[in-house]
Amino acid sequence: MTYCVGILVDDGLVMIGDTRTNAGVDNIATYRKLHVFEQPGERFVAVASAGNLAASQAVLSLLTEGIGDPDSDNFATIWTQPSMFKTAQFVGRAIREVYQFDGKSLEQQQAGFDITFLVGGQVKGGQLRLFMVYAAGNFIEATNDTPYLQIGEHKYGKPILDRAIRHDTGLQDALKLGLISMDSTMRSNLSVGMPIDFVLYRRGALQAELTHRIEPGEPYFHDLQDRWSNALKAAHKAIPRPPYGNG
Amino acid sequence: MTYCVGILVDDGLVMIGDTRTNAGVDNIATYRKLHVFEQPGERFVAVASAGNLAASQAVLSLLTEGIGDPDSDNFATIWTQPSMFKTAQFVGRAIREVYQFDGKSLEQQQAGFDITFLVGGQVKGGQLRLFMVYAAGNFIEATNDTPYLQIGEHKYGKPILDRAIRHDTGLQDALKLGLISMDSTMRSNLSVGMPIDFVLYRRGALQAELTHRIEPGEPYFHDLQDRWSNALKAAHKAIPRPPYGNG
Repeated sequence: MTYCVGILVDDGLVMIGDTRTNAGVDNIATYRKLHVFEQPGERFVAVASAGNLAASQAVLSLLTEGIGDPDSDNFATIWTQPSMFKTAQFVGRAIREVYQFDGKSLEQQQAGFDITFLVGGQVKGGQLRLFMVYAAGNFIEATNDTPYLQIGEHKYGKPILDRAIRHDTGLQDALKLGLISMDSTMRSNLSVGMPIDFVLYRRGALQAELTHRIEPGEPYFHDLQDRWSNALKAAHKAIPRPPYGNG
Repeated sequence: MTYCVGILVDDGLVMIGDTRTNAGVDNIATYRKLHVFEQPGERFVAVASAGNLAASQAVLSLLTEGIGDPDSDNFATIWTQPSMFKTAQFVGRAIREVYQFDGKSLEQQQAGFDITFLVGGQVKGGQLRLFMVYAAGNFIEATNDTPYLQIGEHKYGKPILDRAIRHDTGLQDALKLGLISMDSTMRSNLSVGMPIDFVLYRRGALQAELTHRIEPGEPYFHDLQDRWSNALKAAHKAIPRPPYGNG
């Protein structure tokens, strides 16, 4: 399983991904799911993947390997896309290429072509945007009303985002809320696990402000987990007991 | 959709269920999903259902209508079961009867026979027990290590239960935590909705301590929702900002 979340706020973009993959609970491995494609001053694109590992790795390979244009000798890559909209379309095109190649065989083995991607970033001269690209290659976009998108095991970590994330949330607060959301998910689903990769991007910067991997035992994240857990306990204890019956 | 939770603690049993059913988002109705079968001093059994409404209603009808015993003239009903284990088996048998009758036709219409039940209670002379019965008619039981069971849309409301419910949690606190879990679920999934039915059973009583329906706007539940929401906001605000980057 996987959990990745992208949060698009006025100040910028946060993308967070876990690194656990599993083929059954007896076959667990660590794979990076959050990838950054950056030319400082020109382009910052972060791509996170969930679902079938072989399929999502093949899509990522195509993003830089390139896809031939049937009408010319040109090769399109993620580096040649002139806007974020075109970048999301290109990721969708790479997904369709992989489906053409592998989809039928996967279905014959009941494996399913269940991949989704988050694609966020900014190309020089364009807006900072965040998309979720489906297995069909189509996509939706985060907006001011719904400024975050999730892929993979999204339910456990959604309540805190629903309650707290707004488009005017600060970048560091968005990161903090994303990490709380990741903590809730890891606590309830063993197949989402440490380490955690994240990238912080400030709107207009055209390069990452920070890419970081949080390893197990890292003090800030450990402290965040403790504080959140203790605060939840205090929160439910502070609510009066129900007045029903003998209560 | 549906969300029902059963919590088995040292002091007794709490079972909570929402009442929303939907066939598409344009066809929403209110149906009771939590049913109590009680002979004071003899037997207290609460049954909650999730999944295909026609199938789960048919199962509930069979519980009191009865199922013929192929080896005799006797009719078995939920009232004739000598223990909670036999009661869970009987619910499983009713599920299998409905599957025999309807399952194949449902599959022909791609409708699926996706029902699950919570069965909790106590029969005179026996222990208080809580089971989850699957569509196959088999079942698992709540234990001291995992004192709660959920059916339906279980993920949004699971984190608070994972963190807070223990077998020695008091009965009113278990109700309170179950209501917080219900609130989290309703907030993230529109197809789980008010009113909320619950039943409180004190171990050994052999009759419900309280059955109650919480209607929309009921002051205690409204206050619980507000307090929980405010406490979550305060909790994440109280966590220091991440120390990464310029934070």
